[in-house]
Amino acid sequence: MSLIHPVILSGGSGTRLWPRSRKHRPKPFLPLLGERTLFQQSLDRASDQQRFAAPIIVAGSAHCDLIEDQACNVSGVRLIVEPAAKNTAPAIALAAHSLPAEAIMLVCPSDHHIADETAFLAGVEQAAELAMQDYMVAFGIEPTGPETGYGYIQKGAELAPGNAVARFVEKPDIDTARRLLADGRHVWNGGIFAFRAGTVLAELARYRPAMAERVAQAWAGARYQGTQVHPAGEPFADIVGESIDYAVMENTTRAAVVAADMGWSDIGNWDALMTARPGDAQGNRVSGRVDLLDCRNVMVESDGPRVSVVGLNDVIVVVSDGEVLVTSRGGAQAVGKLPGAALQ
Amino acid sequence: MSLIHPVILSGGSGTRLWPRSRKHRPKPFLPLLGERTLFQQSLDRASDQQRFAAPIIVAGSAHCDLIEDQACNVSGVRLIVEPAAKNTAPAIALAAHSLPAEAIMLVCPSDHHIADETAFLAGVEQAAELAMQDYMVAFGIEPTGPETGYGYIQKGAELAPGNAVARFVEKPDIDTARRLLADGRHVWNGGIFAFRAGTVLAELARYRPAMAERVAQAWAGARYQGTQVHPAGEPFADIVGESIDYAVMENTTRAAVVAADMGWSDIGNWDALMTARPGDAQGNRVSGRVDLLDCRNVMVESDGPRVSVVGLNDVIVVVSDGEVLVTSRGGAQAVGKLPGAALQ
Repeated sequence: MSLIHPVILSGGSGTRLWPRSRKHRPKPFLPLLGERTLFQQSLDRASDQQRFAAPIIVAGSAHCDLIEDQACNVSGVRLIVEPAAKNTAPAIALAAHSLPAEAIMLVCPSDHHIADETAFLAGVEQAAELAMQDYMVAFGIEPTGPETGYGYIQKGAELAPGNAVARFVEKPDIDTARRLLADGRHVWNGGIFAFRAGTVLAELARYRPAMAERVAQAWAGARYQGTQVHPAGEPFADIVGESIDYAVMENTTRAAVVAADMGWSDIGNWDALMTARPGDAQGNRVSGRVDLLDCRNVMVESDGPRVSVVGLNDVIVVVSDGEVLVTSRGGAQAVGKLPGAALQ
Repeated sequence: MSLIHPVILSGGSGTRLWPRSRKHRPKPFLPLLGERTLFQQSLDRASDQQRFAAPIIVAGSAHCDLIEDQACNVSGVRLIVEPAAKNTAPAIALAAHSLPAEAIMLVCPSDHHIADETAFLAGVEQAAELAMQDYMVAFGIEPTGPETGYGYIQKGAELAPGNAVARFVEKPDIDTARRLLADGRHVWNGGIFAFRAGTVLAELARYRPAMAERVAQAWAGARYQGTQVHPAGEPFADIVGESIDYAVMENTTRAAVVAADMGWSDIGNWDALMTARPGDAQGNRVSGRVDLLDCRNVMVESDGPRVSVVGLNDVIVVVSDGEVLVTSRGGAQAVGKLPGAALQ
């Protein structure tokens, strides 16, 4: 069995995790769950050399130092430096160019959390099996609630394993989300994909020929520097950025989905992070110098100053880099709208 | 009409206003309501030279510098430095020794808030009138709720003006407080008193002869230093500290009460302070660099770091001297129990 090539996409700003997530040190590069950063955990999950080739990382130049630092112990790692942020389709296409056409890519965001690694690896096996049949495979996450923050995938005809994709559903309103949850045929779109490098390039050329051509030109003009690859900036600059979902997955007739129940979270805001962390007997989660009195389901983290909390439930307090955030769990979605988060 | 002698008692630590109130800069010396500190506002209220003599301040040596600084523009001020903290009875007796026997003292805490100064001054006139008849007058505050944090005074026979005191009631439980509120004959004990200097010394000698004697010895051995008077420490050290309420007011047959509805608050905790501050249209009170999103009835103050608050009601956030406090309004009473408040 040929090795699977992990492709770790490192974009995204994570303003909703402000004030810990900052422009110079965004969400993937923070140790939000455990001692390793989300980025490092993404590498760790695909580190079994019996099954995985060395990882390919696609990232912006602003984060190269963070990546070199956090991935320095990973042998054979290759870092493709995006000349500009153009969403996931061009980033994935660059990675595909770096591989033989038959190579199977496993595309993973660098800022998600997966609690059940065994379930993840089982999903990878299924996805790889479908990818070898030239399917373009999306990981579907078994939904745990009527989330409005995720896209959904409707499962179609059964394949072996997995299903064909009946359709992709954009982020729904709450009523739609409840309906999708109830019908049992929809899963969340986890942003994890598997396909052959040649397949994704062929399908991109079919549905987004201009984008495909410019990516190919950028790749052809790439400059190599140690473990880093710098595709040419000029052709890349003209690309109209688009996600792999829009550019390819929603158009291709080869879309498949494997459903995985693997404790997945996109850690999209402080409330999601709180949910992913284990609480004490009162449901509290604290790190740093924290004193609680009569609190339940409170999360507090501080990078220095002592934080004292009295008589509160379902509140999150974050002290980081001289900024103080206090939010209700329900308000966590809105943190990115704060002036502090916008300006960073 | 002879002038009234304001006696400002500056004790109390105010741990429930931690982290703004600290050992080295306690509650009376903070500008909690407006630009003047509570101590300065206490001086201001009794500053009309047509009615008031120069103030006498009784305080511990730790706060002499703060007092000299904050009272430096008050002419004729005298500062009596307590050799040790022995509660209010000895402090008041020291002040009484510094005055002629017939002088009328108006004893005021230095850390309370009075919103309606006109009502206060009207109460002072009534109290002075009774004091001239050798009554020992307590200010009764018209209760606005069944508070359990204050002592109560039951009004007895009518005097002109005011009433005799039927009895003093210690801090009640909530059921008792509701009953006291309902019967209309009880007022809060505001800790403000008026009496002749000679009367309080005579009554102290009657009910606490040992204390009275030691205070007299301390006064006789006083050392004078500029505007400061330093009573002798040795006799004072042996005093068993007691409040004027316990030592004298509850025992004397001359106790009277004048009721005042003057927007009084002891600013006993952050919730009381919030109540005393005007809010905006959403009931929010902020000072310092504060961003609010979807908040109602939130109070935030910061001495530096930006504080961002999202989606909360009835919460108080205080950032001061590197400490961060987040409390529900209901939890504000318990702030003094925090490790930070205890250690300061």
